[in-house]
Amino acid sequence: MQQRISATYHLTTRDDPMRTASLIAGEQSSGTFVVIPGEDEALKARAAATFDISPLAEPSEKGALGHYRLTLSWPLANLGPSLPNLMVTIAGNLYELRPVHSLRLLDITLPQAFAAAYAGPAFGISGTRALCSVPQAPLIGTIIKPSVGLSATDTAAMVAQLCEAGIDFIKDDELQADGSTCPFDERVRLCMQVIRRHAERSGRKVMYAFNLTGELDEMRRRHDLVMAEGGTAVMLGLNSVGMTGFNAFRRHARLPIHAHRNGWGYVQSGWSYVAWQKLWRLAGVDHMHVNGIANKFQEDDDSVIASAHACLTPMFTDKACTVMPVFSSGQTVMQAHPTWQRLQSQDLIFLAGGGLFAHPGGIAAGVNALRQSWDAAISGVPLATAAKTHRELREAIATFGPIT
Amino acid sequence: MQQRISATYHLTTRDDPMRTASLIAGEQSSGTFVVIPGEDEALKARAAATFDISPLAEPSEKGALGHYRLTLSWPLANLGPSLPNLMVTIAGNLYELRPVHSLRLLDITLPQAFAAAYAGPAFGISGTRALCSVPQAPLIGTIIKPSVGLSATDTAAMVAQLCEAGIDFIKDDELQADGSTCPFDERVRLCMQVIRRHAERSGRKVMYAFNLTGELDEMRRRHDLVMAEGGTAVMLGLNSVGMTGFNAFRRHARLPIHAHRNGWGYVQSGWSYVAWQKLWRLAGVDHMHVNGIANKFQEDDDSVIASAHACLTPMFTDKACTVMPVFSSGQTVMQAHPTWQRLQSQDLIFLAGGGLFAHPGGIAAGVNALRQSWDAAISGVPLATAAKTHRELREAIATFGPIT
Repeated sequence: MQQRISATYHLTTRDDPMRTASLIAGEQSSGTFVVIPGEDEALKARAAATFDISPLAEPSEKGALGHYRLTLSWPLANLGPSLPNLMVTIAGNLYELRPVHSLRLLDITLPQAFAAAYAGPAFGISGTRALCSVPQAPLIGTIIKPSVGLSATDTAAMVAQLCEAGIDFIKDDELQADGSTCPFDERVRLCMQVIRRHAERSGRKVMYAFNLTGELDEMRRRHDLVMAEGGTAVMLGLNSVGMTGFNAFRRHARLPIHAHRNGWGYVQSGWSYVAWQKLWRLAGVDHMHVNGIANKFQEDDDSVIASAHACLTPMFTDKACTVMPVFSSGQTVMQAHPTWQRLQSQDLIFLAGGGLFAHPGGIAAGVNALRQSWDAAISGVPLATAAKTHRELREAIATFGPIT
Repeated sequence: MQQRISATYHLTTRDDPMRTASLIAGEQSSGTFVVIPGEDEALKARAAATFDISPLAEPSEKGALGHYRLTLSWPLANLGPSLPNLMVTIAGNLYELRPVHSLRLLDITLPQAFAAAYAGPAFGISGTRALCSVPQAPLIGTIIKPSVGLSATDTAAMVAQLCEAGIDFIKDDELQADGSTCPFDERVRLCMQVIRRHAERSGRKVMYAFNLTGELDEMRRRHDLVMAEGGTAVMLGLNSVGMTGFNAFRRHARLPIHAHRNGWGYVQSGWSYVAWQKLWRLAGVDHMHVNGIANKFQEDDDSVIASAHACLTPMFTDKACTVMPVFSSGQTVMQAHPTWQRLQSQDLIFLAGGGLFAHPGGIAAGVNALRQSWDAAISGVPLATAAKTHRELREAIATFGPIT
């Protein structure tokens, strides 16, 4: 059977839905705005996108806004199993067509050829756990704060405290790459010296995702430096690097790739996270940011949990491409229970910045409190009950709770 | 003096504007949601983003939506002259903050260090004109239609007709890359054979921008094939390739780069075209799509003209980075006069697909009519007057006009 790509959208329009759907399908395949010589029926049968449309909410009267579920389907032969060209086909010129009031990609289904063409995550959940020596339970992590402004020496001093405090995972802020205040190479050398020494003593190597976002040759060279220094992860910003740059880097990479989604604020106008994360997982990220419950941004909890579930849902029968969802943004001990209740998975990275550093008992108390909150959640012990027997947790609740 | 990056936004919020601006500036520099150890005043002075905010439309009452012009300013030292990291800083996590109702980047100003770090367009306007042997007047061009579905042989046959018809410029549709129906290599070989033969006879080589969007190694190899076959341009989709992939390709490229903006429909929720095109021009595109007057999409004419003006406005005193704006989307003889009246520049590529192929007199008549419309516009001859003495133009007006 011919392999096809399908994409489902939420379409709103004041126009005739069949006419609008047909226009979109034409724009994204063999159509143009007038019938032209060469547009014969055989060609259309071969290359045209087909569509299916059903109402979600009918317009109240003619000319009022109607909501529809639109599914487009393309023959793989139009583009081949190419992620950059997939983006053009499923998320190219279609949004701007005049009868379209709004259009958002909800989900995609890719034929098997895509699974064969891309590597997927090299480490994923099990590979990340192995490198961190955390066989189960969420990875407790943090973002170096302040976001930007610390020197490399300051950063390494903070990493030393975090290692002593028993952290599993550290990442750079997405704003921290290779500015002159904190150059990448110096940061990696100084921080890895600390992490290696701690690993020698403790037998556990803290995973630090160094933000190597930049030009491709820089990213490759920085990756090799992290590797040479014994580092176990790198981080990059997907919307800055882009799909082609990511794929070129992925072929070079021998470390887990921690993917930051900054810029999601504009990308989300056309993409649901459920659709978007599939492309990046297939391309080969290992950790995907999903925001967090009761976050400091606008996203609601349902959306956050749907994103995290998506990251943990296999993509192909023989190629799951499952990745670690990364919870962050205003996360504290107050979010462990609601996150666990809704996600029912321990396979996640839980990042707290202020929610760790601002613990009144210091950084070690901050790490302990976070771990206590997750232990309680997973064991089914209410937060208030756990707080009675765990001082750090009690102090954290007094500082950060309740969620407003 | 310390070099700084500045970015201006249109912000709408129901919240206190100073508080919101301060939150955004903090999120995008040295802030976090609680004050943490290490956030000393010296660090803040060094790394914090500063801001300036002024009302565009004050809220009618407390809690109503206010419109503001917000300018953020960062020290270059936070990130260095890196375009991928610039995107994180100016268009990263800021859009999603809770008090932000909407936020759109209007314009950016980059310090001189960016001009030194990136190549800019290698060909730009004069280089493109030289390769096309069109010293002045708009380049009359077309997109191979149907968008996708033609074989390489069919495409070459159409190119032969277009060459005979006197076209200046041809491009692939953005959906046409390397699908199995029309493989890239075969398309380039067959089309360039036609173009070379025509150039030998006519002394003018038609510029064909072959869409090489794909993985980086594919793009480099495809570029080299186009070059070896005597081709004079390549095309790619900026939002699929992304900034890092583009920059890696740009270093390899020895041909003009025709930049397609498909996906702009979602990017525009966070970026004005005026801001966005600056990054890509500095990175080194030669032609930038700007949509067209009375287009088939939602964009209004003011916005289209502002985009085209931006492409023609120098970026740095010693590095103009000016590029050819590319007009397309439902363009016909009816758009020459209004485009000229508002742009007052001949430095543009004018693409008609259906507006050329569907001319009742055939393709040569279609090209002639487009050229006649532009000659008339630039000479100050009204369209109706020119139509009296030019049959092809008259037929085109009967077919395509008036604009509804």
